Amino acid sequence: MRGAVLYGPRDVRFEERDAPKIVKPTDAIIRLSATCVCGSDLWPYRGVNPTARPTPMGHEYCGIVEDVGSAVRGIKLGQFVIGSFFASDNTCPICRAGYQSSCQHAELIGGAQAPLLRVPLADGTLVGTRDVPTEQLIPSLLALSDVMGTGWFAADAARVKPGMSVAVVGDGAVGLLAVLSAKLMGAERIIAMSRHESRQKLAREFGATDIVAERGDEGVERIKDMTKGIGADAVMECVGTQQSMLQAIRSTRRGGYISYVGVPHGVQLDGEQMFFSHVHLHGGPAPVRRFLPNLIELVYDRKINPGKVFDLTLPLDQVAEGYRAMDERRAIKTLLRP
Amino acid sequence: MRGAVLYGPRDVRFEERDAPKIVKPTDAIIRLSATCVCGSDLWPYRGVNPTARPTPMGHEYCGIVEDVGSAVRGIKLGQFVIGSFFASDNTCPICRAGYQSSCQHAELIGGAQAPLLRVPLADGTLVGTRDVPTEQLIPSLLALSDVMGTGWFAADAARVKPGMSVAVVGDGAVGLLAVLSAKLMGAERIIAMSRHESRQKLAREFGATDIVAERGDEGVERIKDMTKGIGADAVMECVGTQQSMLQAIRSTRRGGYISYVGVPHGVQLDGEQMFFSHVHLHGGPAPVRRFLPNLIELVYDRKINPGKVFDLTLPLDQVAEGYRAMDERRAIKTLLRP
Repeated sequence: MRGAVLYGPRDVRFEERDAPKIVKPTDAIIRLSATCVCGSDLWPYRGVNPTARPTPMGHEYCGIVEDVGSAVRGIKLGQFVIGSFFASDNTCPICRAGYQSSCQHAELIGGAQAPLLRVPLADGTLVGTRDVPTEQLIPSLLALSDVMGTGWFAADAARVKPGMSVAVVGDGAVGLLAVLSAKLMGAERIIAMSRHESRQKLAREFGATDIVAERGDEGVERIKDMTKGIGADAVMECVGTQQSMLQAIRSTRRGGYISYVGVPHGVQLDGEQMFFSHVHLHGGPAPVRRFLPNLIELVYDRKINPGKVFDLTLPLDQVAEGYRAMDERRAIKTLLRP
Repeated sequence: MRGAVLYGPRDVRFEERDAPKIVKPTDAIIRLSATCVCGSDLWPYRGVNPTARPTPMGHEYCGIVEDVGSAVRGIKLGQFVIGSFFASDNTCPICRAGYQSSCQHAELIGGAQAPLLRVPLADGTLVGTRDVPTEQLIPSLLALSDVMGTGWFAADAARVKPGMSVAVVGDGAVGLLAVLSAKLMGAERIIAMSRHESRQKLAREFGATDIVAERGDEGVERIKDMTKGIGADAVMECVGTQQSMLQAIRSTRRGGYISYVGVPHGVQLDGEQMFFSHVHLHGGPAPVRRFLPNLIELVYDRKINPGKVFDLTLPLDQVAEGYRAMDERRAIKTLLRP
């Protein structure tokens, strides 16, 4: 089969790879209905994270079970399934506490930008849908695999509740879906920080009540103006830089909540500043598995349409253009059809 | 009157100061029944925080209202009251959210190691007791002003719930009272990290089920051994150094809770480490005012006896010895009688 392999900065190749096989009895092989490029793929693509050796790319997936190992019980051949970017047994004490992405046996998924994918710990990782979904539902179901699950975690970790004022730092796909998640959780005022017209439009469609284009001191002031001078009850940091984290801390009211869901790059938090900011801080790799059953229902019931973040669809063999379009911010997120 | 004044490292003098007067109509003057030396007083005492000019010391207090300003309504002359180390109006949106120590009009209390104290925003800050308490209750009521309120906040901010495993980093008075608070909140396993026999004893008396004397890697391993290999559900950091914060992060299970309640000194948190530790982090200056009514009841009902942390009682004029004893760890906490 052919799949996407990253060789170095801005060098993604679509090339022949061995098709995945069952390695452990708990594995499954999935034939992907769709896959996509993640904002986090851009860190190595841009060379911020070095690529030591050619690396098969992709960790978002949904599709039909094509093979299962001898120990797999809950997942059946021919079933449509979705899983998270972290495989998890879903039975260890960390999983039971709802942190499947820190499962004691967690394995990072890789190589999903391809027609076939091996998923370890299939019974714990994969969630089946009620039927094989129509073509129309595929983008939204694919989004659950990471970007919607992560946006939902952003809102959950920031303890968004009905009536709250919230702000979202970052207008990538995760930030936009954090807006959607906050809306569903009943936030009253949802401030999206964005400078890009197409993303502002989608943020409003997902439920943003206000857009703040300013950053730094000016951005903080704008948010305070909208929140009785005290800052937002909850702020979701969906970027992962020092600047965005400081923006989040300074935009939150004392005693409020900050979530952060993108791997921090070069972020250092000053203990004393955190202390006097009086905020709650929670984040990490989103435990998407915790949210999948509920999110699948919301998609099937047409209550959410997170697939709207895919504003570019390409055949898988054009994966390199998919990365370029996101790198140059011509696309919010690229869906790939194997 | 005479009160404690810090001139520089290890130079506390008991000397003549102007008696406080009503400055604003919202002030009250309290005649102190007792005051004490705080662990946080040791930072400037040791010169870690520089002392720019002679500074009246002390911020923990309880006593009888001797005078009130013309705008004070709820607080009456002759009443016994307790307040926090931060004066607060208790009406602003931050106070209403329960973060009175970040009140929009917060003022830090100072100069309480004296017979008389001016308390700003008296109606918001002070909480009266049901009567003038017996002598026996004074130490425990005084403890509520900071150290017990802060220990309680440590447990509250770490979301201690029935059945949880918790650990406390730090065996100062706050750490010991965090143990007591966790016990009252129903924690099942309470691990106190302490190397000092007298403190270990008090920790056990307050409800600690286990003592860990080791620190660093070894301390982390001991705690993991006691918690199914995964770390404690909640860890309360009651020191404020880089070492103690790292100890806390590494001792918490993924998805667990960390609180920190002492002003961090030189603490830097690495964003990526925090992210993958998956912890919740919350802390700051304890909003003691939020907890005072409940804690006063608990003391009156003999359900808690936080005054036990005072293992040295001195007349106020021996305040310098009170500091020395705590600095040299001969005393956990010094109570001073004006």
